[in-house]
Amino acid sequence: MRPILLSFVLAASAAAQTTQITAQQIIDRIHKEVGVPWRTQTVDTFKAGDPRTPVTGVAVTMMATFDVLQRAAAAGKNLVITHEPTFYSHLDGIADLEKRNDPVLVAKEAFIREHHMVVWRFHDHWHMRQPDGIQLGMTKALGWEKYQSASEPHLFTLPETTLSELAESLKKKLSISVMRVVGDRSMKVSKIALIPGAAGSETQIKALERGDVEVAIIGEVPEWETVEYVDDATAAHQHKALIMLTHIPSEQAGMEECTQWLKTVVKEVPVEFVPTKQPFWEPK
Amino acid sequence: MRPILLSFVLAASAAAQTTQITAQQIIDRIHKEVGVPWRTQTVDTFKAGDPRTPVTGVAVTMMATFDVLQRAAAAGKNLVITHEPTFYSHLDGIADLEKRNDPVLVAKEAFIREHHMVVWRFHDHWHMRQPDGIQLGMTKALGWEKYQSASEPHLFTLPETTLSELAESLKKKLSISVMRVVGDRSMKVSKIALIPGAAGSETQIKALERGDVEVAIIGEVPEWETVEYVDDATAAHQHKALIMLTHIPSEQAGMEECTQWLKTVVKEVPVEFVPTKQPFWEPK
Repeated sequence: MRPILLSFVLAASAAAQTTQITAQQIIDRIHKEVGVPWRTQTVDTFKAGDPRTPVTGVAVTMMATFDVLQRAAAAGKNLVITHEPTFYSHLDGIADLEKRNDPVLVAKEAFIREHHMVVWRFHDHWHMRQPDGIQLGMTKALGWEKYQSASEPHLFTLPETTLSELAESLKKKLSISVMRVVGDRSMKVSKIALIPGAAGSETQIKALERGDVEVAIIGEVPEWETVEYVDDATAAHQHKALIMLTHIPSEQAGMEECTQWLKTVVKEVPVEFVPTKQPFWEPK
Repeated sequence: MRPILLSFVLAASAAAQTTQITAQQIIDRIHKEVGVPWRTQTVDTFKAGDPRTPVTGVAVTMMATFDVLQRAAAAGKNLVITHEPTFYSHLDGIADLEKRNDPVLVAKEAFIREHHMVVWRFHDHWHMRQPDGIQLGMTKALGWEKYQSASEPHLFTLPETTLSELAESLKKKLSISVMRVVGDRSMKVSKIALIPGAAGSETQIKALERGDVEVAIIGEVPEWETVEYVDDATAAHQHKALIMLTHIPSEQAGMEECTQWLKTVVKEVPVEFVPTKQPFWEPK
């Protein structure tokens, strides 16, 4: 019996070793493999769950909404890697929500606990990669590689079209639920700056100041900032426009790109892209 | 000839006195009449032009866009009183734009200078009035006075409807160009918190935590804040929804209200409401 028992124990132990990689070990590997020095100040940290948790599978997503967590858990993935916050603020601070016993926080935290989930954010360093992982994924999703500037990968020279046609094609390609555009519909455009997410009005306005940029395509921005700026540029006949894709579809393909990369780095457990659903609809 | 000349001079002087009220004098009167103590820390300050400028007429508006300035000037109004910023940030800081010789800033400032215009912001103190001047105007515009809570004027109990019908009626009443809703379309709703503008996610989430609030109607908020919160509340079946009117139509009627009030305070020159146009359109 002895040799049989021993070989059984050894096999079980080997199986345990291959499946029992922890969340912390996966994140350590990302730190090592991402290709840029790890920052001391970063939002790329654990947001929920115990880093020592053995990982059954990795769900990569744009925003760790409750719906994403539910779908990840149903698919047997208990480590969620998210580009955007989990708890409704950039720094994921939950102290005030906890003090008020916020029922949404309570429900989300309970779900994470009950399903032994771990949530970790992958934002700053995925953007810091060369090329920026989000830009790379979005460029591929749009099929715009051939229009991309070699020296400034966020700039594109498209075949001339109208602002209206450009907006329509983006809406279709990225399946956007509700999109907003500022500028003259019939304006001829070809020179584009693609600035996904919420990069801030300074970055967006600086891009729009350039002679070689006519349209900034962004995720979102406060309406008294770049929105008013482009509305004013339009009134001043300065041939500028703004397309607001909303945040999730403006970066989502960049996390699909991240999933492909992570599959080359983590092979012990399945790695799957769980797309974040867009929250918005529009009334008739 | 002497008496005639004298009476001509007196008449001219009297005319000059009545028409030559300065921007500063009008703002001083607002300080005195607004009914709340003037704050030392406030964004309610001059944003452009010389406060000593004689005022030909007052244009009250939601946001001093270039288009609003053009229409105000065309209507002979050179003092613009605006609820929202003129130069693309909450504090209207223009140092960086100036350094870069930003062409939109240059055009807008030139227009203001050439038309002897003065821009002053009226934000904090119009909100601080009892009742809040923006809430008052919006409540009237919606015809919701009869549904309003006596003790908490931002809360309303409407006849029961669906979220979808509520959103449609708001879109129609406020002529909103592009609106976004988060939540179940068919959800029955009656308990509303009206929180115009960009009051911040803490205020919005606190309202949504209440048992007597089902829907928050807001202007705007970053999408990883209250938007994700309500998306999560929906996934957790917590009977909450969010209607984002966009910023301008969420407060515009409050500045129409302000115009009516200002007419009772400033009688030397015409006071007119110049509605700010919504910047957004949506592709097909």
